[in-house]
Amino acid sequence: MVKRRQLKLGALLHGVGGGTSMWRHPDAQADASVNIDLYKQWVQKAEEGKLDLIFIADGLYINEKSIPHFLNRFEPITILSALATASKNIGLVGTLSTSYSEPFTVARQFASLDHISGGRAGWNIVTSPLEGSALNYGKKEHPDHDKRYRIATEYLEVTRGLWDSWEDDAFVRDKETGVFFDPEKMHTLNHEGEFFSVKGPLNIARSKQGQPVIFQAGSSEVGKNYAAKEADAVFTGHEKLADAVSFYQDVKSRAASFGRSPDSILIFPGISPIIGSTPEEAEQKYQEVAGLVTIENALNYLGRFFEHHDFSQYPLDEPFPELGDLGKNSFQSGTDKIKRDAKEKGLTLREVALQSATPRGGFIGTAEQVADKIQEWFEAGAADGFMITAAVPRGLEDFVEQVVPILRERGIFRTEYESDTLRGNLGLSVPENRHAKAKAVR
Amino acid sequence: MVKRRQLKLGALLHGVGGGTSMWRHPDAQADASVNIDLYKQWVQKAEEGKLDLIFIADGLYINEKSIPHFLNRFEPITILSALATASKNIGLVGTLSTSYSEPFTVARQFASLDHISGGRAGWNIVTSPLEGSALNYGKKEHPDHDKRYRIATEYLEVTRGLWDSWEDDAFVRDKETGVFFDPEKMHTLNHEGEFFSVKGPLNIARSKQGQPVIFQAGSSEVGKNYAAKEADAVFTGHEKLADAVSFYQDVKSRAASFGRSPDSILIFPGISPIIGSTPEEAEQKYQEVAGLVTIENALNYLGRFFEHHDFSQYPLDEPFPELGDLGKNSFQSGTDKIKRDAKEKGLTLREVALQSATPRGGFIGTAEQVADKIQEWFEAGAADGFMITAAVPRGLEDFVEQVVPILRERGIFRTEYESDTLRGNLGLSVPENRHAKAKAVR
Repeated sequence: MVKRRQLKLGALLHGVGGGTSMWRHPDAQADASVNIDLYKQWVQKAEEGKLDLIFIADGLYINEKSIPHFLNRFEPITILSALATASKNIGLVGTLSTSYSEPFTVARQFASLDHISGGRAGWNIVTSPLEGSALNYGKKEHPDHDKRYRIATEYLEVTRGLWDSWEDDAFVRDKETGVFFDPEKMHTLNHEGEFFSVKGPLNIARSKQGQPVIFQAGSSEVGKNYAAKEADAVFTGHEKLADAVSFYQDVKSRAASFGRSPDSILIFPGISPIIGSTPEEAEQKYQEVAGLVTIENALNYLGRFFEHHDFSQYPLDEPFPELGDLGKNSFQSGTDKIKRDAKEKGLTLREVALQSATPRGGFIGTAEQVADKIQEWFEAGAADGFMITAAVPRGLEDFVEQVVPILRERGIFRTEYESDTLRGNLGLSVPENRHAKAKAVR
Repeated sequence: MVKRRQLKLGALLHGVGGGTSMWRHPDAQADASVNIDLYKQWVQKAEEGKLDLIFIADGLYINEKSIPHFLNRFEPITILSALATASKNIGLVGTLSTSYSEPFTVARQFASLDHISGGRAGWNIVTSPLEGSALNYGKKEHPDHDKRYRIATEYLEVTRGLWDSWEDDAFVRDKETGVFFDPEKMHTLNHEGEFFSVKGPLNIARSKQGQPVIFQAGSSEVGKNYAAKEADAVFTGHEKLADAVSFYQDVKSRAASFGRSPDSILIFPGISPIIGSTPEEAEQKYQEVAGLVTIENALNYLGRFFEHHDFSQYPLDEPFPELGDLGKNSFQSGTDKIKRDAKEKGLTLREVALQSATPRGGFIGTAEQVADKIQEWFEAGAADGFMITAAVPRGLEDFVEQVVPILRERGIFRTEYESDTLRGNLGLSVPENRHAKAKAVR
């Protein structure tokens, strides 16, 4: 019997949540975003469910209108490293911006996390959508969208070069002869580019999985090309199955056009399952959290996508305001979509704000119904896997305890980890060291 | 009865060691510098001994002559975070350079580590002695020694400002009213200085200990003033008791001249105890490791302090060569001392190299003898505590199992942790939030 194609699952750990108000729920831990015990419980719950990975998102700028989770949360490198020693098999993926960091440091930190975790590290590359980030990093201006991607391209080239500083068998450690390493297998990068000049070598070896797994989440044209060319996995978001399928096909065919196998890049739509013992109970759970969002919360939430624009200046019940290019240099594809939807559907500002702040998603219902929908998307070619976010308290626990067993029963999700590395579990190959490869060719 | 003054103890975790050849010892784990299980064992051993802290050193540049530990080791932020969830009470201190990093990121990572560990983080500020570091960070030149300290001063000012972004009671989290934080208790830094411009606020709250503990290790004039003014603790190194006493008095009186209480800054000489059941066995342990060091190893080791100078060009058995200012812009006080000693004692290059690479230290003997010496230094006013480095395999284990109980018996070291924060155990006060303080004064 041929084994069925297997679904991949990640859990986005998002403290008090990606929205404005889940922390107000009676069952929510209001300090979740800086509660290490809770993060440990979550990673262990995800590992109990044999999920592929946990994911930590990030941002580099806040102001008084930012949502609660963004104001006071763990920094990704530190929390992922802390969770590495509190888990055994699960992948540890985090966001880090190429616009406001140094490739030598970032290559090192992810490589070190990869060693600490025994080959379970992943890096979600972002280019920092928020202009305010520049102000925290002494930059006169935030680079524009396309320039940010040019920086990101060179940045990853440098990082991958540093990760290949040492061939896998470079560290001989021969106590008898006193040879610690083979100098022929140590490589100095000597990168000189438009944005970076980095000598190397990196002061840490390759890990068990060769290099950390590269995630990317851009959905603009430039972002999709970057992902298709460079990423091992893409984190995306779609309301409708048809949109998800067309995004999936788009990225896979772009990958093919860059000479890559479509299987070498995995697409993960993000979903927020809400599970009830009946469809009504699930719906009620959604309404309960949505009902905690005030219109002020919603306007602030919306504002962040538009470069922290102040939406309280417009009348609430008139058509969504004309914003020109606002948002183009931050969340380009997201803000385009909001503007387009508002125009097409003739929505008011109040409607747009509330819809943004309380996205309903389609994964609400009984465990069986949610599993059906996941299977439908998976089999329709909309996803290689899903990134699960809790939109209600105990959202992750419910998913692992109730939905995962159904997916497993249906033969589309694993019973045991196949590997102890993230690449192994995701079915991605270990990238060969470039220098070893070059020698093999000679 | 008045409680006796209590000694503080830290353990420098240094993988295969700070020298060239310990990894060759039959009992050494040759992959120690990237062995997470071993680091976990060490932190747990240190915690079993109720030590105050573990310490992770760092560097940002390697070449083929670097010592084994530097070539392939964990990065400090990641390994400290990983060890945070593998320990409960012990402090977690690591080196990070102010010359090649961004204060917003570093403030965040240490603050996040401080939260993850429940108030046990410490930061050893260095300015990067190695010129080569510049080449890994796209800088045309390595800033000179004094400029590096000016950068470090402003850097710490920014970092401390960011750490005070939120007053301790800023996060109200009132589910009823929907107030997550009190905007009056959120503070934007708006720093504009010579080297940095950072807006803030930081996206993480203060921890249980207020701010991470600041370590510093400079011993040049500029370095000592920096430490005396800014640091909570100083990591130093001396061969002779008299030198240690005079350094101790010097730093404490400089601290006083900056208006600080001498008790608010702790001095930690680094020592490498080697314990035997007899003095002869201890001496033999030292000789065993020293005997593994070749003259090539020793010349390379020495070279690093002098900007990776190639000492193989000089005759070995003639007087130590004249080097002019070489070393002044890297390890200033260390290289000055080497040159001075060589001249005064008329040493050859071979002698200088071997002495540097196999420092004998004075803490070699039975557990009783080592405890005597520690007590002597402590009571003579040479130290508030010691930083222990293993110079032989099982060096840390021997110290914790054999020397610590004697110090405890003599009433100069704790039986139980006094606190669950690093500041608490070190007897340092929690720095008040500057904004709360200003309000209290009004």
